[in-house]
Amino acid sequence: MSDPLIVRALRGEPVERTPIWMMRQAGRYLPEYREVRSRHSFLEVCKRPELAAEVTLQPLRRFAFDAAILFSDILIPVEAMGAPVEFGDGGPHFRSPIRSREQVNALRVPEPAESMPFVAEAVRTLVRELPAGIPLLGFAGAPFTLLTYLVEGGGSKDFAETKRFLTHEPEAATTLLDKLARTVAKSLEAQIRAGCCAVQLFDTWASVLSPADYERYALPYARAVFTHLAALRVPRLYYVNGIAGILERAAETGADALSVDWRIGLADVRARAPRLAVQGNLDPHWLLAPEPVLRERVRDVLHSNGGRLGHVFNLGHGIFPSAPVEAVQWMVDEVRRFEPRR
Amino acid sequence: MSDPLIVRALRGEPVERTPIWMMRQAGRYLPEYREVRSRHSFLEVCKRPELAAEVTLQPLRRFAFDAAILFSDILIPVEAMGAPVEFGDGGPHFRSPIRSREQVNALRVPEPAESMPFVAEAVRTLVRELPAGIPLLGFAGAPFTLLTYLVEGGGSKDFAETKRFLTHEPEAATTLLDKLARTVAKSLEAQIRAGCCAVQLFDTWASVLSPADYERYALPYARAVFTHLAALRVPRLYYVNGIAGILERAAETGADALSVDWRIGLADVRARAPRLAVQGNLDPHWLLAPEPVLRERVRDVLHSNGGRLGHVFNLGHGIFPSAPVEAVQWMVDEVRRFEPRR
Repeated sequence: MSDPLIVRALRGEPVERTPIWMMRQAGRYLPEYREVRSRHSFLEVCKRPELAAEVTLQPLRRFAFDAAILFSDILIPVEAMGAPVEFGDGGPHFRSPIRSREQVNALRVPEPAESMPFVAEAVRTLVRELPAGIPLLGFAGAPFTLLTYLVEGGGSKDFAETKRFLTHEPEAATTLLDKLARTVAKSLEAQIRAGCCAVQLFDTWASVLSPADYERYALPYARAVFTHLAALRVPRLYYVNGIAGILERAAETGADALSVDWRIGLADVRARAPRLAVQGNLDPHWLLAPEPVLRERVRDVLHSNGGRLGHVFNLGHGIFPSAPVEAVQWMVDEVRRFEPRR
Repeated sequence: MSDPLIVRALRGEPVERTPIWMMRQAGRYLPEYREVRSRHSFLEVCKRPELAAEVTLQPLRRFAFDAAILFSDILIPVEAMGAPVEFGDGGPHFRSPIRSREQVNALRVPEPAESMPFVAEAVRTLVRELPAGIPLLGFAGAPFTLLTYLVEGGGSKDFAETKRFLTHEPEAATTLLDKLARTVAKSLEAQIRAGCCAVQLFDTWASVLSPADYERYALPYARAVFTHLAALRVPRLYYVNGIAGILERAAETGADALSVDWRIGLADVRARAPRLAVQGNLDPHWLLAPEPVLRERVRDVLHSNGGRLGHVFNLGHGIFPSAPVEAVQWMVDEVRRFEPRR
């Protein structure tokens, strides 16, 4: 039996058409998701395998996506390290942001089978229930990006606390990044062993660093995660929101594919990281544009890949909750009718 | 008499050392600025030439910067177009954001001498009062960036209204960008004629666009401004916050120098835009780092230029109000002791 379309595309193998999935494809833009969330909290959906599986399957019932992605959150493994997290309307919130060496030392590197058994269980459920030919993707947050949430206590605009911590507590920062790398590596390994056919590492905020600081604080730890996974032989995707300034360095993490935001052209990505597959990169705002504009922008992305092998279509960032459901259908439609000339 | 150091550097001519100034060098991190602001509103300081001149001179009394930059705001010409703006703690605010063709049609292209005479008067005052050898820089917001403020009604996180307006009201958007380009060109011309020796065009938010959309909505209008100024023969700087994905395109605006944020290395900038001078690009957060870290990061920036001509040292973005005054002194000190090897 041949590998799924998306796996072949991520390996740069010939494909009959360009595969597509969508970051946050299971999420608030879907009324059936909002219905589930009206009865269950965000963390409850993450932690109850039957609920996680249900919302993971929802977008597949509407759209001809070429992959499902496990419904979970990048902070689930962080919580298992001993840092309780809450999810409110303002996003994730840590009641005790990490600012000291003592707090770092108190965090553990959890075993997924003991601390997060619900993740692997959701994966196994989904592998059974997904339609034939639709593989499941796993994911995790990259160490630097997880550090920003722990240190800021949630999301941030300018990441001032993160940068303060990195330079005022350099040893604690190194210890924390190392613990996060080991936690993330174990979490992704568990997802793969339970049945995920590829994984995406989200280093969403690594682009707040200069290239020199990226090499200090992000690159080595993302690379440690990918090195740990190498023997498992599944495609490893690496996402940075705002990757343009560090593209060549991001390619050195050991990723098989770069998942890129829309603020760089795919032609530039292919020229600067020619050995890697690429995923992306429609500006998610265009899902709110008039239909002809959206379809044109989708074609722009497809053509900007220049007919090269190794392209998976996606947004450049997660879909907005305000995006209309029919726009997703137009996007999928436009991608599936595209015939790559090779 | 030879041209000022910074002008020679911006022209790529040989210089005895790397010049330095700092974005928002007149601003809230200075106690003497806060003292003036405790007695006068932000707009009052912008509009009263003696106050604008006073706060422009303040940082020069403390630090050996190689240029002064006129104290003003990129929204002053926009207000003169007929869009009243307020400045509160949350930043600029337009009570009537621009969302329709009718609103765009109601905006005028103001004559600086009639609508903003205080700007040229402040420039003339400063040219008289500045120490010998310290030139004055002028500035303006670029058309796309000004459009975002008008359409969003102020600052924005994701620029959703901007992108809605661009695609749902494409003709109004084009008309507005054209009016903004003419307004900005006149404003910068007036600043130069009053005595500014170089100008910086701030296209701070152009990086929220994909490269293809940058070519649609930002590049042509920035280019129109620079083309208008070409005959005046002063160096023209172009700043984009997050320039990495559009660097080669930004170089096509006709700017003489690119002012770049810290999320791209200067070596990459020089390789990708070899004909232009470059300004930057210390991460402003490092002004809050311990002294040895700050000094090391300053040297990193200086060395990353690789000894090429045409470098002006600056931050990659404006200084934070929370930055300690002594850190600015450490930075200036480190830049002035650096001897470029050529």
